[in-house]
Amino acid sequence: MIKGSQSIQFDKSPFLISSGSIVGKKEGEGPLGNLFDVVGEDDLFGEKTWEAAESTMQKEACLLALGKAHVTPEEVRYIYGGDLLRQGIATSMGMEALQIPMFGLYGACSTSGEALALSSMAVAAGYGDLMLAVTSSHFGSAEKEFRFPLGYATQRPLSAHWTVTGSGAFLVGTRKSHVRISGVTVGKIVDYGLKDSQNMGACMAPAACDTIIQNLEDFERKESDYDRIITGDLGYVGQSILFDLIRKKGKDIKPNHMDCGMVIFDQKKQDTHAGGSGCGCAATTLASYILPKLEKGEWKRILFVPTGALMSTVSFNEGESVPGIAHGIVLEHC
Amino acid sequence: MIKGSQSIQFDKSPFLISSGSIVGKKEGEGPLGNLFDVVGEDDLFGEKTWEAAESTMQKEACLLALGKAHVTPEEVRYIYGGDLLRQGIATSMGMEALQIPMFGLYGACSTSGEALALSSMAVAAGYGDLMLAVTSSHFGSAEKEFRFPLGYATQRPLSAHWTVTGSGAFLVGTRKSHVRISGVTVGKIVDYGLKDSQNMGACMAPAACDTIIQNLEDFERKESDYDRIITGDLGYVGQSILFDLIRKKGKDIKPNHMDCGMVIFDQKKQDTHAGGSGCGCAATTLASYILPKLEKGEWKRILFVPTGALMSTVSFNEGESVPGIAHGIVLEHC
Repeated sequence: MIKGSQSIQFDKSPFLISSGSIVGKKEGEGPLGNLFDVVGEDDLFGEKTWEAAESTMQKEACLLALGKAHVTPEEVRYIYGGDLLRQGIATSMGMEALQIPMFGLYGACSTSGEALALSSMAVAAGYGDLMLAVTSSHFGSAEKEFRFPLGYATQRPLSAHWTVTGSGAFLVGTRKSHVRISGVTVGKIVDYGLKDSQNMGACMAPAACDTIIQNLEDFERKESDYDRIITGDLGYVGQSILFDLIRKKGKDIKPNHMDCGMVIFDQKKQDTHAGGSGCGCAATTLASYILPKLEKGEWKRILFVPTGALMSTVSFNEGESVPGIAHGIVLEHC
Repeated sequence: MIKGSQSIQFDKSPFLISSGSIVGKKEGEGPLGNLFDVVGEDDLFGEKTWEAAESTMQKEACLLALGKAHVTPEEVRYIYGGDLLRQGIATSMGMEALQIPMFGLYGACSTSGEALALSSMAVAAGYGDLMLAVTSSHFGSAEKEFRFPLGYATQRPLSAHWTVTGSGAFLVGTRKSHVRISGVTVGKIVDYGLKDSQNMGACMAPAACDTIIQNLEDFERKESDYDRIITGDLGYVGQSILFDLIRKKGKDIKPNHMDCGMVIFDQKKQDTHAGGSGCGCAATTLASYILPKLEKGEWKRILFVPTGALMSTVSFNEGESVPGIAHGIVLEHC
């Protein structure tokens, strides 16, 4: 069951039973627009604040995932959820209505991987038949949390990301589906000493490299054993750094790499610079674009690696570097 | 293994092998002062900022727990850690040095319970022989994060808590010790609609009641089956509300209740109002005061219930209420 130094291979793999995705207007206008379950008309989803909107997205994403599987909230044993906001309020306020026992998580944009890892670990251990993994991000609440008030219309460097407004929820359990979670690789904190919070791709690429290499080693696999190796939100800058770092380890993932941050927006038409980011980026791309390909068997096995940049405005202002973390989830068609 | 609607009883209980506690000057002058492993001379622990001090406390608490058990960081499979700061930077920056794969958590002051629950669940599932659970809080960084700059010398209402400067770390694993974690009760978010962030005891008491009642029900126990039922940081205000709420459920925990926030400071001499609070409060009290009593067998079985108030300055300013969450950990002498 324990594989190598950081991974677990499940003896009895839990299934990814269903998913729910809900996004904002801009995401709906992007290349994956018609694949999401719900696209909001504005980014407030009927609420008065971005934070409340984010909470509503989380709740709706969970209800979508539950609805598709004809499961009620009472049947779900535990929720594993998180977001980018201080003290995870989007999750706390959003999940309250479901009244499911909850583990609150924080792993920056890697949180969807963390939530899937912990929920599949819990199912495989027999701690319950149904768990929910949910994450979200919101452009408005994230800019407010990490950068400048939107009203300033601050210029953004080309290395900056555009936070995805969206939430993805996943029902993980023992009930058979066409996608199973066969293993996980839990990530370490990797710090190359970079301090540019407007270049998160560069900050996260070393962590992505570390987790991918460790996954290949722990499971004794080669790059081509995965139809795709899919990072969360490295974007254009982070991807090229990742390729270099992986090459230095004697591996090459260029032919089968994909980054959720690069497919969720049309970089040129939508002016999203380095690409999409946020807890909602990898989660909604997994729910809308990746899972259907796994369900149909178009892809047999993928490595899903959401990446997170660990920082806050306080750590940034105090001159701390921005370390990264990435968790790897092995998803297989079955 | 699954017990009732929210609990797990471990077939093969993991052991709480060792602990580490490190606190600030004020905590060192309190009633538990001579029980902590390390008491700082000031609250900076050699660092330049409170946030960096908190990171250092976390690292040192982990090293203390590891050292006592003669374990190296390389032998630990996963860390489960969290703190109160936005984006959990105390944990991210503190745990980086240990290079152990990490799950970042957020459950406000309930996080020590969350970390112990997840690490014991992982050990019991066979995902590794050694896990670390660590949490921290710091008076300086918490006041800055949640309230006013200390330089304002703002008056505090009597219902306010004094955030504990401290970190507690716990090594959980398969190696036999005299304390085992026999079960956990995962908490739900409970919201009574209170909006006073300076009265966290009142905000958290309903969640504590919910988890305690659920634990008794799930494990089919009565109050007296526990030598102590120990909440994290309800304080004087929260405790009296908890007693009332529990009484309404037809139970009485008055004879065997203890609250970490009420024992860590001398309320009158130290002017700490409602009592201590923070992720470090329950964790350092468990490490210094509770565990030795369990190890010696003075207490045979306790229910440890850290409680958290889910809020941020943003949620508070936007008029949201302050829901609570509490996780229950059953610790037994063996």
